[in-house]
Amino acid sequence: MRKWEHGSNTANGVGIMALIVQKYGGTSVGTIERIKNVADRVIKEYKSGNKLVVVVSAMGDTTDKLIKLMKGVTSDPDPREADMLLTTGEQVSIALLTMAIQERGYPAISLTGSQVQIKTNDHHNKAEILGVDNNRLIEELDQGKIVVVAGFQGINSNNDFTTLGRGGSDTTAVALAASLGAERCEIYSDVEGIYTTDPRVVPEAVKLDYISYNEMLELAHLGAKVLHPRSVELAKAYNLKLYIASSFNYKPGTVVKGVDDMEKRRSVTGVTCEKDEVKVTVQKVPDRPGVAGKIFKELARYNINVDMIIQNLQYDNRNDITFTINKEDLIKCKKVIYRIAEELNAGGVEIDTRVAKVSIVGAGMISTPGIAGKMFEIMGNENINIQMITTSDIKISCLIRENQAEKALKTLHRQFELGNITQKQAR
Amino acid sequence: MRKWEHGSNTANGVGIMALIVQKYGGTSVGTIERIKNVADRVIKEYKSGNKLVVVVSAMGDTTDKLIKLMKGVTSDPDPREADMLLTTGEQVSIALLTMAIQERGYPAISLTGSQVQIKTNDHHNKAEILGVDNNRLIEELDQGKIVVVAGFQGINSNNDFTTLGRGGSDTTAVALAASLGAERCEIYSDVEGIYTTDPRVVPEAVKLDYISYNEMLELAHLGAKVLHPRSVELAKAYNLKLYIASSFNYKPGTVVKGVDDMEKRRSVTGVTCEKDEVKVTVQKVPDRPGVAGKIFKELARYNINVDMIIQNLQYDNRNDITFTINKEDLIKCKKVIYRIAEELNAGGVEIDTRVAKVSIVGAGMISTPGIAGKMFEIMGNENINIQMITTSDIKISCLIRENQAEKALKTLHRQFELGNITQKQAR
Repeated sequence: MRKWEHGSNTANGVGIMALIVQKYGGTSVGTIERIKNVADRVIKEYKSGNKLVVVVSAMGDTTDKLIKLMKGVTSDPDPREADMLLTTGEQVSIALLTMAIQERGYPAISLTGSQVQIKTNDHHNKAEILGVDNNRLIEELDQGKIVVVAGFQGINSNNDFTTLGRGGSDTTAVALAASLGAERCEIYSDVEGIYTTDPRVVPEAVKLDYISYNEMLELAHLGAKVLHPRSVELAKAYNLKLYIASSFNYKPGTVVKGVDDMEKRRSVTGVTCEKDEVKVTVQKVPDRPGVAGKIFKELARYNINVDMIIQNLQYDNRNDITFTINKEDLIKCKKVIYRIAEELNAGGVEIDTRVAKVSIVGAGMISTPGIAGKMFEIMGNENINIQMITTSDIKISCLIRENQAEKALKTLHRQFELGNITQKQAR
Repeated sequence: MRKWEHGSNTANGVGIMALIVQKYGGTSVGTIERIKNVADRVIKEYKSGNKLVVVVSAMGDTTDKLIKLMKGVTSDPDPREADMLLTTGEQVSIALLTMAIQERGYPAISLTGSQVQIKTNDHHNKAEILGVDNNRLIEELDQGKIVVVAGFQGINSNNDFTTLGRGGSDTTAVALAASLGAERCEIYSDVEGIYTTDPRVVPEAVKLDYISYNEMLELAHLGAKVLHPRSVELAKAYNLKLYIASSFNYKPGTVVKGVDDMEKRRSVTGVTCEKDEVKVTVQKVPDRPGVAGKIFKELARYNINVDMIIQNLQYDNRNDITFTINKEDLIKCKKVIYRIAEELNAGGVEIDTRVAKVSIVGAGMISTPGIAGKMFEIMGNENINIQMITTSDIKISCLIRENQAEKALKTLHRQFELGNITQKQAR
């Protein structure tokens, strides 16, 4: 893997310059007008003297249109052929953006995932990047060109096109930035940055100036619309600075980076709420060793991710085992769990979809005692019953009734004073 | 270049089989329903025991839609980026057709021009095929798969996508057939074959069972909607049989192949009319050596193709030099010809766009005396004035007034008895 060398063309009198990777999402290139707007933004950065790689997604609803065509042919597409179809979406947008940049008189070139040699494994539709061969990229950068790369796509060892699945274009951008040793990776979309909580639910929500990788990962559900956890993990692994901002204005966004001392003072950075949890209770399971193991091993075998788990001893040496899963795994889970319940001679299975998981996240939590107690107290004061609890170093999550989720979110945001977090702590 | 060996997998018990290349044009794959129809046709051929490579164009108006997007960005697109954009059209149709074949339970795989390694020169938008690396193709064929290949596209030595220009998908099909040593190449579209003349103008026009390469080339204007001259030239060079038929029914089409004795008996095979000719006369040019040379060298320098030429000595040692060009070169031609006329101290320039070129074509013409005379006589009897004449071994063309073209076409078709050519001569 060849790295781009900073200031490698000082011979041209450009002096030390940085390499920046920018990524523009589907909404940002959703129309010809928006593509022209992106061209203007790209050129603005280029004129500041930086080397520039620009990763773009397919135009707005292109992917949906292609999927509609596909559904007209088959309900069960061959993953390889689905990737052959879907990779055309980004190819269209890189060509158009490159033309828009050239039309303004600046040098640019478009490259597909196969031309950049973004090498992936064979998992069509959800491939993982194995490596990037930078040679063509660096060659074009060294010629002073803005290089526009198709996000979301790569090639496997058989030279077949693959797609990276959800969050794929973010992952492309971060992988290229990491592989080229870029100064930073900028992710532009229709969202202005990372907020203390969902601004549509809590109007007092504040945009964060910065956030740590770990906090960002815990806030995944908040951030998923902006930034997929995969790309955050990759950025963290390479200690690559991410910048999340809107492509529709120049308001400052949010920097995602490693933790420094100052950040640790922020005990709580954000509050999130996930409504796609389902609570499953296997009732009156005989209290024998290995019973819980059997349940969760079976669920794992069917690729069902289990989130929270509790076990309560009931009367008569029998336990209730309760866990939560994601709604999208519910059908699969039902098939497995009723069978196991019968095998274990359990009392029955109860499934509750009207639950929500409310979490507080903060890198400083670990050094601030009493945060969990404060959270439970706030919930109690509002008569919100906590059904389950899980914690990590930087997150505390409570499962509550779904219809109390909004109240919980607002109260926690207010009580932890997140509405003025930026002024007090962020700078 | 590796050739596919006939019967190479007799180990599978399939026995001697032929390799067929089929090509389906944009109209034939214009909707999901039509793609499914093509899948049925392809499978029918596959079930007959033949190895099959299927070349497809972009779906109906896809290319137009892409060009509309492009025009929204720039009126002067970089040819490389235009190719990046346009090659997505065929990529969509190969994926959908492959899925449709798989949906019916037959093995298929799609390959782009770059995956097939259709190597071209650097002339973006009008690239020429230099060679085909058959390895991947043969590998997939040997696994018993129907291989669906994107027409119209290739890659240059820099691994950049190129397009082949007008008639590109036909050329792809013929190049693959030639390179693989296929039994024949079948070109399917919404036209049922090659006719003795345009059936929309002359209802008595008859579909030919066969036609020679040379006749087909001379009938280019008739055939261009069905088959581009480039692909005919390539087929001729490799002595590859072409079969032109409709994808919407199973009526017999037209075979394009080498001449045999029997064919020579057909003195006239078809009548054509081209209305996109323009007649240019440079008047009263001094009768000096090198004058005509100067005019036509200048026109060639600007890539203006000259078709017919005559020179008449007028009074006073001055000539009128008249020639015809294609309408699409008229603007370019005007720029050049007025300047030259002035430099030569000519009398003036006259441009006449209301002309048409009517031609009769036939491989047997060369061995049938009096055909030209008969043609001129027929025209004379109908009071059609002939302004210019050109001839080749198998074609005689007359420039006439445009508003007499239809009459000329009908009369020639009737007088040369083309209405019953198939019954009399073709079988």
